[in-house]
Order: sequence, then structure tokens, then C-alpha cells
Amino acid sequence: MSSEAKCSKAQCDKFVAVNELAKRRGFFWSSFEIYGGSGGFVTYGPLGTRLKQNIEAKLRELVVKKIGIYEMESSVIAPAKVFEASGHVAHFKEPMVECQNCHTRFRADHLLEDKGISSAEAEKMSLDDIKVELERHEVICPDCKGKFSEPTRYLTMFETTIGPYSGSVGYGRPEAAQNIFVEFNRLYNVARERLPFGCINIGKALRNEISPRQGLIRLREFTIADLEFFFDPEEPACERLAEVENEVLPILLCDTRLKECEDVTNFTVREALDKGIIKNEWQAYFMAQAKRLLTELGVPASRQRFLEKLTWEKAHYSTQSFDQEVMVDRWGWVEVSGHAYRTDYDLTCHMKASGVDMTVYKEFPNPVETEELAVKPLMAKLGPVYKGEAAKAAAALAKVPAQQVADDMEKDGSILVEGYQIFKEQVEIGKQKTTVRGKRFVPHVVEPSFGCDRLFYVALEYAYGLKDDRVVLSFPRSIAPIQVGVYPLMGKDGMDTKAKEVQKLLACEGFMTEFDETGSIGRRYARADEAGIQLGITIDYDTLSDGTVTIRDRDSWQQVRAAIAELPKLLHLYFEGKINFESLGELIKVK
Amino acid sequence: MSSEAKCSKAQCDKFVAVNELAKRRGFFWSSFEIYGGSGGFVTYGPLGTRLKQNIEAKLRELVVKKIGIYEMESSVIAPAKVFEASGHVAHFKEPMVECQNCHTRFRADHLLEDKGISSAEAEKMSLDDIKVELERHEVICPDCKGKFSEPTRYLTMFETTIGPYSGSVGYGRPEAAQNIFVEFNRLYNVARERLPFGCINIGKALRNEISPRQGLIRLREFTIADLEFFFDPEEPACERLAEVENEVLPILLCDTRLKECEDVTNFTVREALDKGIIKNEWQAYFMAQAKRLLTELGVPASRQRFLEKLTWEKAHYSTQSFDQEVMVDRWGWVEVSGHAYRTDYDLTCHMKASGVDMTVYKEFPNPVETEELAVKPLMAKLGPVYKGEAAKAAAALAKVPAQQVADDMEKDGSILVEGYQIFKEQVEIGKQKTTVRGKRFVPHVVEPSFGCDRLFYVALEYAYGLKDDRVVLSFPRSIAPIQVGVYPLMGKDGMDTKAKEVQKLLACEGFMTEFDETGSIGRRYARADEAGIQLGITIDYDTLSDGTVTIRDRDSWQQVRAAIAELPKLLHLYFEGKINFESLGELIKVK
Repeated sequence: MSSEAKCSKAQCDKFVAVNELAKRRGFFWSSFEIYGGSGGFVTYGPLGTRLKQNIEAKLRELVVKKIGIYEMESSVIAPAKVFEASGHVAHFKEPMVECQNCHTRFRADHLLEDKGISSAEAEKMSLDDIKVELERHEVICPDCKGKFSEPTRYLTMFETTIGPYSGSVGYGRPEAAQNIFVEFNRLYNVARERLPFGCINIGKALRNEISPRQGLIRLREFTIADLEFFFDPEEPACERLAEVENEVLPILLCDTRLKECEDVTNFTVREALDKGIIKNEWQAYFMAQAKRLLTELGVPASRQRFLEKLTWEKAHYSTQSFDQEVMVDRWGWVEVSGHAYRTDYDLTCHMKASGVDMTVYKEFPNPVETEELAVKPLMAKLGPVYKGEAAKAAAALAKVPAQQVADDMEKDGSILVEGYQIFKEQVEIGKQKTTVRGKRFVPHVVEPSFGCDRLFYVALEYAYGLKDDRVVLSFPRSIAPIQVGVYPLMGKDGMDTKAKEVQKLLACEGFMTEFDETGSIGRRYARADEAGIQLGITIDYDTLSDGTVTIRDRDSWQQVRAAIAELPKLLHLYFEGKINFESLGELIKVK
Repeated sequence: MSSEAKCSKAQCDKFVAVNELAKRRGFFWSSFEIYGGSGGFVTYGPLGTRLKQNIEAKLRELVVKKIGIYEMESSVIAPAKVFEASGHVAHFKEPMVECQNCHTRFRADHLLEDKGISSAEAEKMSLDDIKVELERHEVICPDCKGKFSEPTRYLTMFETTIGPYSGSVGYGRPEAAQNIFVEFNRLYNVARERLPFGCINIGKALRNEISPRQGLIRLREFTIADLEFFFDPEEPACERLAEVENEVLPILLCDTRLKECEDVTNFTVREALDKGIIKNEWQAYFMAQAKRLLTELGVPASRQRFLEKLTWEKAHYSTQSFDQEVMVDRWGWVEVSGHAYRTDYDLTCHMKASGVDMTVYKEFPNPVETEELAVKPLMAKLGPVYKGEAAKAAAALAKVPAQQVADDMEKDGSILVEGYQIFKEQVEIGKQKTTVRGKRFVPHVVEPSFGCDRLFYVALEYAYGLKDDRVVLSFPRSIAPIQVGVYPLMGKDGMDTKAKEVQKLLACEGFMTEFDETGSIGRRYARADEAGIQLGITIDYDTLSDGTVTIRDRDSWQQVRAAIAELPKLLHLYFEGKINFESLGELIKVK
């Protein structure tokens, strides 16, 4: 508390203020404090768990219920084969150096960033480049001032053993996407073998960071929401595009970035597609939905942007990538979702590695007639020459491409195959017609991928505000961790019993409630504002006589009076966003 | 499919039927099939994910919203210290043998169970006992008939390394409970330092089984819901007991079990407590709630029981344990929740290991006056004898318990401490009064712990039924994975457009919907029944003229007619359990 206490509200940035509040009120804190902590792990307390679940529910509401994307749930641990095939074992590495004196290990690119080299620059460096730059900037151990070892690449996946055999390596998944790809055939079957379809996988993911920092922004264990949307690359049109085509996307283009400029260019979804800025309609669709989602979580559009990724910044699987970024007080622009066009990269990798066919079949609208050159051995002429070996000679001939046979015959009048000399007049060369009714292909994929802990953090930071020098967390009402606080004005004369009845009524209606009877009503309101409790319902002497209660709004501090009997109906309408606070009852003057 | 096809509906048990259906319709399947599978991991497909989330939501609804228990979310990976302190590193082991020929490894106790030795028997055996029994039953490798090695104990936790230092061991948590215990101080702070309070932690847990079998019943990665309820052992009364005191708990008592009898004894909660069958009110309360929960998931009370655990079956931390069991077709009685009285075991372990105080303070209603024997050295008399060493002599004396000083003085007239002989007249021995205003103590804990995958499995098996020789999944309406199917009678004349409008309307109201336009309406109903879709709404020619639709009930196949405009209101009431199907509209005759 001492370092926190030193930092007055005006001085410190929101990161400190939010983290201090989060710890004090139980939104989240660093895990395992009693054992000295373990970097990169957080525990969400009661308020945080509610908030995080509400955010994830909002994502599901949009993606699963409204857009009609499938959802799956799968394991965090996967056998090594999965991540060997996906390229993670080879590529999911970070440059690391070790202090030769105190043996502390550091992310080499982070050390360079501290010297003013941008992360984009550092990301494209080879180990040799990094070594040169570390030496040029005379980077030494920040802990003990020792010299560093040669940089190496460190695999940032958690490794373990599955079952009792030491050879059976497993990894903690660094993304939930691979679970979707490896189960593609099952999912395609659930989709009744029709494209397009999408599947989202929300769950824990693990990245064994070398030295995690930045609190909730960079965790070793975090919640990811990977959505893989599969479509036929020859039919890439998005049938839902009309829903979003006028949505404005503020994009920081590669071209602008290369000029070391940070100005965004605003495009409507339609423009971005027409101008080829975004290459796929579904990708543009999900980017627009991501912008709306963040807006609904409380981040104004003006504090969001999409960063087009440079070639060397993109993941190994992506042809076009955008990061959705949100401006936060301490860290500047922070990625909250990534939008990658993964093409057929992943499915193709898993097909190759597993030998299992993951192509899909599509019938052509009209069968296609094709003509191919064909060589037909004339057995009546080959027979007399090769006798018992005529069939072998014909088989040898069949192995040679028809065009080559034709060319040789044209040039030499014969062809020598596996020791058999076959002459022009012993074969018939001509065009052969075939009808092709369809073809097999590997679906393409666009992926929006959300970091749920970052969504959580930005929602919390944007909710954070001061009113009359007191902290109020003004969450959008759809994600407020507690919807209704219930307060007996005093703990006597039956007000406490009545308040408990009201709380029970609302809990049974499915509302998230809290009961608080400690301290003055003013102190309870203040505590509730700081926890982001949307509405406060106070039971007073009038309640006992006329069955009405006071409802108080967290943000405006306005109060209305309504009948208990009406509360379930009114509150459902209010939390579904169908009525405003003023419609909950009769406005009353607050002293 | 071939082995499944061979098994006709009448012949095979529900386990096979449910698993086949689950795979075909995408409830769940074994993960990583394209890589030959990896035992003990499952993937929940779209229908399964919805069902599982609905079950978990029901648990949260009960525990968090209605009972008012806190919820937290924490990491799956934890530093080794946590599980060293909890006793898991020492105790969380299973007996294992390895075939000396083919080197396959087996759970030794499972091999004995195959020879008719009960799991209860096997569980209490030492490694030597196991060896003797394996030899006595001439157990050989089931795969290659080879001989087995000596049994060993195998740690069934997934081990990994946290960060870039090889010494920093971490484990995948085998339970979510420890995350609650290690964060007790923070949670107690959130609870504003008042007991009792509880906290539930729902999330993935990992047990590195030697050879997982039994499908969803025994997984390497699964979802656990651990609820730790903290209370003052001197105030163990449950304030909510009245809610459940007449609930009947069918208990298979230890005494009955020791007679090799399986008859349950029925006790009301009140009786079980009065007779000392269940030692703690809160434990009884949660057992009753667990019974209700399972009933609401579709398991009749007659197919549930509570198994009192024998001494050697209990976990290392538990003083009294009950398993809530459900009868399933293939496996007989299967545990779905465990109810353990963990006392102060865990908090005490973590206090010792971390050195952090996790006691809580309580003030006595009335301060307690205590009298203690006190020994006061009389320096005026010691000084002249010991001179410069008088203070040392007094300090040495202070280390001896007062009662011992008094006894020695009484017996010998002096006492010899650290070489100083001190005489009776050099000290004053008397009673000293102190006022004690309160005390510190370690809270006690009762724990209900649910296996969510097992809740899922039993809900699915109990929903499974045949009607007119067709599969119908009759889920309770509160957990049906899809609430409403929307069907245009035909894909023409605007019925498809209208149906999509209706689906959109319902999706925006928060209902989980599905749109299906393929095949005859009869086939669509059949498909929907098999997926457990609660209601089917059909848009036909009449819809286009009068705005009404047909609503069909999955279980009774009854149909009613209702106006689209009324649907949101009616369906909310229906799914909240406030009205029956017949109240949705006018009953119509089905051809």
C-alpha cells in the first residue's frame, strides 16, 4: 500500500490507479503473493470474474447468437504433433540473452526497445543483428550490470509430458485456433458439409514469457477467443456485409507507417474493400464487428484504430493482418484483437503432417468437359512383337506422360521405355474427353482473435472516472459486474428483512445482486460506485408502508421511486437496454 | 462407424448410444483424431459447448446469484510451492506397473479391479500389498502377456517449467481449490473480514492419468467447480439451513458398506445432522443443494445417492467426505460431486509453507479475564549475587515455564538454569491478570466440488430416450443447448425470408436459435429432437397472411399457434419456467 498511497490521484496514471483499485476491491491481483508471486499469472476476484464473464458473454451473444458462428471447447494441453505441424515449435520463439554474471535472462528485443529501437524494428532482426545492436548500444544487465551471453531463441510454449512415457511431449496451447483446425473434419460434418461457416474457441492459452511485465496486458496464462471462419476462396463474398458496410474503420496503413507517421486513414468498410485495403469481405466484416464490440465495452471509436501489419511483423501463417488497438493511459496503443487472413495455411499443414484429407468437395454448377491427350497401346500390334511381355511393355509406356510419348513419336518415330522400343504404329495417340463434375479444395480462413484479459483491462480503464473526487466505475450497463445493490436504510424496524426479501426476489429473477447493510447509506453508495454497481435500491420507512423503493443511478446519482412489484419487469427492460433510467419510476429530489 | 453400426439400439448400452450420438451430432468427441488421438482429452462441439455452458450457468445461478457465494478465476498452472504445501506432490500419486516385455505402463489398482478386487480395497493397499496381490492373481500384461516390474507410485500431475529457468517447476492444477486457499487473505479482505463466506472457482484442471478410460468420466483435462466455504469452527451454524432441512438425502453409510451391503438410508437434512451422520450444517446444506441441482439437470432423486467415504478412501485433507453419485447405464454409480470437510488443513499447510499469517481475528462478545502464573525475578536480590550477570540469569529464568519454576522452588527451594542457581527468595511467584479481547484462529472449510464434464455426461444420458424408435434428447428446458429452431415450411414464396426475420428477432432477444431449411419439415423436426432443441417454430403460408406461427414441443410433439409479435414475451416466460407449453398459444391438431 505504501507505494500506492504515495501516488496521489492527480499524479499517477490510470494504470496505477486501476491496478490499485482492482486489488483493493477484488477485480484482479497478481497470483500466489503468499509465495512471493509468479510473474504473468493473475487471479480475478469476485467483481473481476463477473466483469470478465459479462464481456465474454457479450462476445458470445454477438458471435454465436447473432452471427450464428459455432462454438467449441477444447483442451489447453495438446500433443506435440499439433504444434509441430502448425509451425509453432519452429517459430514460436523469442530472442533471449543471459547475464554472464547473475544469470538472469531477458527478452533481447525488450532490451533494445528500452534503447529506443521500435518493436517493429526489433521483430525483424536476426540473432546476429540483435547481437550487433546490443553491443552498439552497450546494453548491460539492468540488475547487476554484467555482460550478456550470445542471444538465443527461446521457445515460449509450456512443455510437459502426457501420460507416463517421457517421450510423449505435450504443449500448453499458445492459441486456441489450432484446436479448431485439427477438428475441422468434425466441424465441417456438423455444418452439414457446407461453407462458409465459422467456429469460435474461447479458453485459456499459455505463453511462457521470458519476463512478463505490463500487468494484464502480457500474461503467461490468459484467455483467448479465436474465431476461425472457413470459406471457399472462389466465393469469398460476405452475405452479412450490408450490416456493416458504412461502418468507418480508422486504419493506420503500412504505407503511412513506413513514413514513420501515425495518422490513421478513415475508410468505410465498403471503401476499404473497393480500394483493396482489406482483401477479404469476411475479414472486413469481423473488423467492423470488433470495432462495435469495443464501443459497446465503453471504448469510444476515437480511441480505437486498426494497425496494418508490416510483412515482417505478421505471424508465419498470415497473408494480411490488422491489429485492433485501443489507446490506454500507460502503454499507449495496445492490441485487443488481431485480424489475420490465414488462407489455407493451417489446414494444409495439418493435412501434410497427419496424412488425413481435409479438403472439401464442391460440385460445379455445370459439369466441365475437358479434353486430354491419351496414348492407347495397340495390343494387336504389340503382341506379336513382345509376346508374353506385351503387357509389361504397355504398362511401362503408361508411366510416361502422354505429351512426351507424342513428342518422341513425332521426333523419332519411336520411344524407348524400360528397354522396350515402341513404334508409332504400335500406339494410337488422340484426344480423350472427360467430364469433371466438381473438385476438392482446401477452405480459406479469416481469423478474428480477441485477448479477453485485454478486453477486460480496457473496459475497466475506460469505466474508471472521478466524480466529486470519488472513484466511479461507469461500466456500460450490459457488463456491470453487479447489476443491483440492495440496501436497508437502517438495520432495524424490519427494513433489513424487507431488503433481504427484495434481494431474493431479484436474485431469483436472474439479476446479479449484492446486499450491503454496513455504514451510512452515503458510504454504501460510494462503495457501490467504486465497484461499478449499476443501480442501488434502498429500502426505507416508506417501503414498509407503501411497498415502494428508491432506485439510484450510479453515474448520474439521480434517484427514482418505484414499486417493488414492478421491479422485475422494469429491471429486465432496463438491463436489456429497452428503457432508460428515468423510465424506472418517478424522479425524486435528492438532498 | 463400423463398430457403432453393428450395435443395434436394443443391444448396446446407453454409453455407446450416447457417445455415438455425441460424435455424430457434435456434442463431444475424442480430441486430435487426425493424429491418432491422445487419451483423456475431449473436444466439445457446438451443441456440447452450449449444453456444458448451460449446466455451468445453472451452477453459477444457484451458487453465486442465489446463495451469494463469491466466484474467482485463476490460473491452471501454479508454481510447485503451492502443491508441495498442499500435500499433492507427496500424495497425488497412483500405483503403476510396467510390462518388462512391451514396456506399456498400467494403473496397478485397475489391473487388480479387473481381478475382482474392489477399488476401495485396492486404494488402501501399500505397494507391497499390490505386488503380492498381482502375483497371487498371476496378473500379466493384457497387451503382450509379459511380466510386470515392481509397482511404483507415479505422480499424476502435469509438470512444466515456468519461465526460462529450468529450476522453476510448475504444475497443472489437479483441483481449483488450492487457488482459493492461497488467495484467502485477499478474499477475506473482499468479504470485509467477515465469516462465513464462500468462493467458487470453476475452470480447467489437469490429472495426468496413466491410462485414461471411461470417456468423459475420466479425463486428463476436465472442468472442475471447487467451492470452498470458510467459517468459524465455533460458529458452524448454517443460516440458510431452513431452505433445505426437509430435503431427503439417500446415504450409503460406512457401516452399511463395511457389511458389503449397498442399501441407502434416507435421512432428512435435519435428521442427518441430529444423528451426527453429517457433522457440519453447511456441508449438509451443500449436499442438499447438490441433490436439487442434479434433479434439475434431469437425474431423478431415485438415481442419486451419497456415499460416505471410508477412512482410507478419503483424500489426505479430509475428515469427513461424501461422494454424490449418479447411476449411469454402463458404469453403475459414478461420482458427480464430492463433499469434504477439509477443516483448517489447507490454510494451515499454506501458512506453514509460506510463513504468511492466514488466521483471522475475532473479538469476544465479552473480554475474558485470565489469570496466569507469573515469575518475577527480584533484581535487588539477584544483583548482589550475580553482579554483572544478574540480567543474564533473569533472562535464562524467563525461558522456563512459570509452572516449572514454581514446582522446582516448591520441591528444592531453588532452580538451576543455564548454570545459574536461583533461590526461592530471589523471585516472586504469583498470579497475574490479563484481559483478552479476542483471538486469532484458522477458519474451517467445507468443500462441495463438482466435476462439470460428469454433470454434462449424466445430463446427456438422462436426456437420451427413444420415441417412436427415434432418438429424442429431452433436456430440462433450462439447459437445452438450442432453445428454438426456426423453419420455413418451404424455401419459397417469402417463407424463408420471413423465417430469417423471426430468427433474427429471437436472436436479438437473447435466445439461442437455429435456422434449418433443408429437407422435409418432418426430417427437420427429427433432426431437432435428436439435438434436444426445445421448441420448433414453423413459418408457413398462414404466417405470411396472419403473422402467426406454429410452435412445436420437442417432447410431446404437440403444436400450438401463436402470433410472431407475442413470441419474445411468451418465450421469455416459457424459458424462465413461468408458463407451460400449452400457454404459448392455441393447441392445434397435428395430422
